[in-house]
Amino acid sequence: MNIGFIGLGIMGSPMAANLLKAGFAVTGYDVSAERVRRLAELGGKGASGVVDAVAGADVVVTMLPDSPQVEEVAPLVVEYGKPNLLYVDMSTIKPETSREVARKAAAVGVRAVDAPVSGGERGAVDGTLSIMVGGAPEDVEAARPVLERLGTTIVHVGPAGAGQTVKAANQLVVGGIYGLVSEAIVLLEASGVDPAAGLDVLAGGLAGSRILDLKRHTMVKREFAPGFRIDLHHKDMGIALAAARAAGVSLPLTGQVAQLVAAARAQGHGSLDHSALLKVIERLNAA
Amino acid sequence: MNIGFIGLGIMGSPMAANLLKAGFAVTGYDVSAERVRRLAELGGKGASGVVDAVAGADVVVTMLPDSPQVEEVAPLVVEYGKPNLLYVDMSTIKPETSREVARKAAAVGVRAVDAPVSGGERGAVDGTLSIMVGGAPEDVEAARPVLERLGTTIVHVGPAGAGQTVKAANQLVVGGIYGLVSEAIVLLEASGVDPAAGLDVLAGGLAGSRILDLKRHTMVKREFAPGFRIDLHHKDMGIALAAARAAGVSLPLTGQVAQLVAAARAQGHGSLDHSALLKVIERLNAA
Amino acid sequence: MNIGFIGLGIMGSPMAANLLKAGFAVTGYDVSAERVRRLAELGGKGASGVVDAVAGADVVVTMLPDSPQVEEVAPLVVEYGKPNLLYVDMSTIKPETSREVARKAAAVGVRAVDAPVSGGERGAVDGTLSIMVGGAPEDVEAARPVLERLGTTIVHVGPAGAGQTVKAANQLVVGGIYGLVSEAIVLLEASGVDPAAGLDVLAGGLAGSRILDLKRHTMVKREFAPGFRIDLHHKDMGIALAAARAAGVSLPLTGQVAQLVAAARAQGHGSLDHSALLKVIERLNAA
Amino acid sequence: MNIGFIGLGIMGSPMAANLLKAGFAVTGYDVSAERVRRLAELGGKGASGVVDAVAGADVVVTMLPDSPQVEEVAPLVVEYGKPNLLYVDMSTIKPETSREVARKAAAVGVRAVDAPVSGGERGAVDGTLSIMVGGAPEDVEAARPVLERLGTTIVHVGPAGAGQTVKAANQLVVGGIYGLVSEAIVLLEASGVDPAAGLDVLAGGLAGSRILDLKRHTMVKREFAPGFRIDLHHKDMGIALAAARAAGVSLPLTGQVAQLVAAARAQGHGSLDHSALLKVIERLNAA
Repeated sequence: MNIGFIGLGIMGSPMAANLLKAGFAVTGYDVSAERVRRLAELGGKGASGVVDAVAGADVVVTMLPDSPQVEEVAPLVVEYGKPNLLYVDMSTIKPETSREVARKAAAVGVRAVDAPVSGGERGAVDGTLSIMVGGAPEDVEAARPVLERLGTTIVHVGPAGAGQTVKAANQLVVGGIYGLVSEAIVLLEASGVDPAAGLDVLAGGLAGSRILDLKRHTMVKREFAPGFRIDLHHKDMGIALAAARAAGVSLPLTGQVAQLVAAARAQGHGSLDHSALLKVIERLNAA
Repeated sequence: MNIGFIGLGIMGSPMAANLLKAGFAVTGYDVSAERVRRLAELGGKGASGVVDAVAGADVVVTMLPDSPQVEEVAPLVVEYGKPNLLYVDMSTIKPETSREVARKAAAVGVRAVDAPVSGGERGAVDGTLSIMVGGAPEDVEAARPVLERLGTTIVHVGPAGAGQTVKAANQLVVGGIYGLVSEAIVLLEASGVDPAAGLDVLAGGLAGSRILDLKRHTMVKREFAPGFRIDLHHKDMGIALAAARAAGVSLPLTGQVAQLVAAARAQGHGSLDHSALLKVIERLNAA
Repeated sequence: MNIGFIGLGIMGSPMAANLLKAGFAVTGYDVSAERVRRLAELGGKGASGVVDAVAGADVVVTMLPDSPQVEEVAPLVVEYGKPNLLYVDMSTIKPETSREVARKAAAVGVRAVDAPVSGGERGAVDGTLSIMVGGAPEDVEAARPVLERLGTTIVHVGPAGAGQTVKAANQLVVGGIYGLVSEAIVLLEASGVDPAAGLDVLAGGLAGSRILDLKRHTMVKREFAPGFRIDLHHKDMGIALAAARAAGVSLPLTGQVAQLVAAARAQGHGSLDHSALLKVIERLNAA
Repeated sequence: MNIGFIGLGIMGSPMAANLLKAGFAVTGYDVSAERVRRLAELGGKGASGVVDAVAGADVVVTMLPDSPQVEEVAPLVVEYGKPNLLYVDMSTIKPETSREVARKAAAVGVRAVDAPVSGGERGAVDGTLSIMVGGAPEDVEAARPVLERLGTTIVHVGPAGAGQTVKAANQLVVGGIYGLVSEAIVLLEASGVDPAAGLDVLAGGLAGSRILDLKRHTMVKREFAPGFRIDLHHKDMGIALAAARAAGVSLPLTGQVAQLVAAARAQGHGSLDHSALLKVIERLNAA
């Protein structure tokens, strides 16, 4: 099976490598020629452009930074893809954009699914991503052999755009828990309580979470090496708000969390791990 | 060892029973004579009032609804307790009240620790509570043989009031996660995505939490039998805000969560489980 | 002077009429043929399309619902406008869109200013709008003779996009004051205080505002005939959040107000006056 | 008529002086002997304590910092006041405390009204305060001759506690408008728009308010000399939240504004004017 892979960044590059390892023929493209060259070194084929990567592919995978890039690339995939092409967009973008892409693809016989991921660079390298897939059941099944080389949890969550909606829901919950844990730390410290001991108790009870398990020690020590950057989480909170707006719903905590993440960015922490939301709550309270 | 136990409600009653089972002599008191009678049936001794329960006790445990009850009972414990009495208040109250109780107790040689719990009625019955203890190290050690009959996790988190501060931090995180999960559900449903499938993905990744593990199925089905009631969580959010005010800190998400919990109560859901915060977010969005 | 006027809705129609009354030659276009016909009855000239309205115009005015319509119409204005055309967009849209329009216009010698208004249908009919103008000083001066027929306050607030930014700031303040007054009413009523008497005091002191002056009586009586509709204010809060995002700033109250306005819309009050934000706060608190 | 006046601080001192000027016999008390001495210099009588100030008074006025001081002084007023005493508490405190004071006073035949003020030190000196009065109609009428010497707007807003509720509503609106104007300024500046020009437009339209009229120039110049201090507004937001809790209502914006004011205090701006809320929004956005 021939796979065209577009977007060979921090996430896309190891994902394409995993597909190569699994025996797929992968033709890759990225705006950075250096990245294309590295894929070729691993046994892939370098493409000269999107159209070149799409030509002859049975499956096209895109892993792009944001909605505008998808809006630019997707029409080319749809136009130059062969009949019955399976198009798997794994970027995290607005659900509306995914629905729009699927609509236009269907009009010319291309089968599009949206399949955003969570699990970060680590998950991309190890092939242990969680993948949330939206699309027609038969198209999702068709994509499964590819997706299973990239992640360990592949869940079909609904029609086109549903993968993105679930990703948006994931990110609003993650951002919110970081905010809550940050407020807990600030309250504990200001009250003269050892935050490490306090968070240990929280982690063991109903307040427990993956974030407390993985990040409470680094947060208390103010270690914010990424991980997943504030800049990306800021982008994702924008997607969550756009998804809420498109769905016609009011999400008050999400609205608040989005502004806190925006503050982290405004304060210059865009390149830190998203747990650096603590720095915003801390500064709100520093003399 | 003689234990005076004051407050035999939903939590206090099974806790006192566990102390009896462990071989302690327990003299209990409650404003409800019926509850006192039930303790006597289990082998305890019924007291006619607080002073009667305190007289002769080596350890006094109180498990009361809120700060005002502790402010009423604690002075009697301190005044009528025997020299060197160990006073363990397990109520969830304002950290400031606990610090004040400890100060007044110390002045007359009574050793006070604050030891609020999490784990609910189930934990009280099974003796599996998590207990956050504030006080002098030697007093906390002295209390440990009693506390170990009531809970499985006993953590000394700091000086007097620290137990309450950690409990407050716990409750603000729990309330906040309920709010975030509620917003995720509303977003998924309004976008035409099956919330059960969506939350399954969230539960398996960085958005995962004890609350998603335990409550996502009942929340999606709108089953809100308590559990821990909204009324109590409303009380606890008031404690969290008071603790923040006393510590001089600003907690923006906590401030917001407190108002959402207040709305749940205003809407008449005070007797439902705290996961019923979903009803507030849902109603915010219902035509 | 020949004016091309595009967008003859509730606002645009009386504005175009005022320009006719002032002696300008106005060629109008709207997607509704009926509206074009009505302009012709007033002495204007009906155009068959955007290009037709633009051809021969010295000044083009657009008054369109939102950014997408401007993104569709503006390129035609720029392409088919005569050399040195003055293009005045009076729609309320994202500042970024206005900056983009100005950039593309400048590239071909068209002078674009953004001039959103406040004052509503009443102000449009009476020619008493407040107009916030962004653009180069000489272009704003060139537009002034036209704008002075439409409004009584015309303020040049900065370069391209600045008009829109000021409008966004205006709308976030207006939405926020409605929310605050709503919370005041709900608190007063729930406390057994006559809200009319209470708001009278507020209106006379530091809490006083145009909104309290104009709307407190109708709000207390729950009269919500528009005025300015929730649907439009919802659009405008989206613009305010987009402007904040583009400027890289965190606006926590604005984030919250946007969700309350979104709730008003989700609850089906989109066609009511924006003072109907009270219905959201009220419902949050109704059993 | 003999007036006992307790609390001779920044507000109370000029108020007592105005009553002296109006010809009332005023016996004053304060914890500061120096302040009592100054009242005596103006022709008043210095009292040695609360009981001394109350003895023989026809009317007692208290102007104290917060609920705890009123809870300490009011019982003495009620116990030592002569039969049918009129007790006018002008402090800004929790509505619940005022209701409790009125209840206890009524039990022994003392007539209590709550009469908090707005207008600040300037209004106290000039006798131009706005006074919100809660109590029985005949008691409010009895107090009017005294109140008319202190303020120009005296409004009877409801039963005992109603004055405090209206004051709380006033303060939540004032705090909120400061927050909104601060966000407007930050958005304008970050977008390259002159904030003075922008706020001029807002002040002239539906976004207009007393705060924009009085404070926009100083806010833009970052001049924050008090005026009304952040510390006091922080106290008042606590009262507003307590009033909401007592009334059983959820006020989401108020909850948020309270945390922003708390941040201003945590950042060390407690002694600045409440318009210094701008510093919080600014810092949230500073690199």
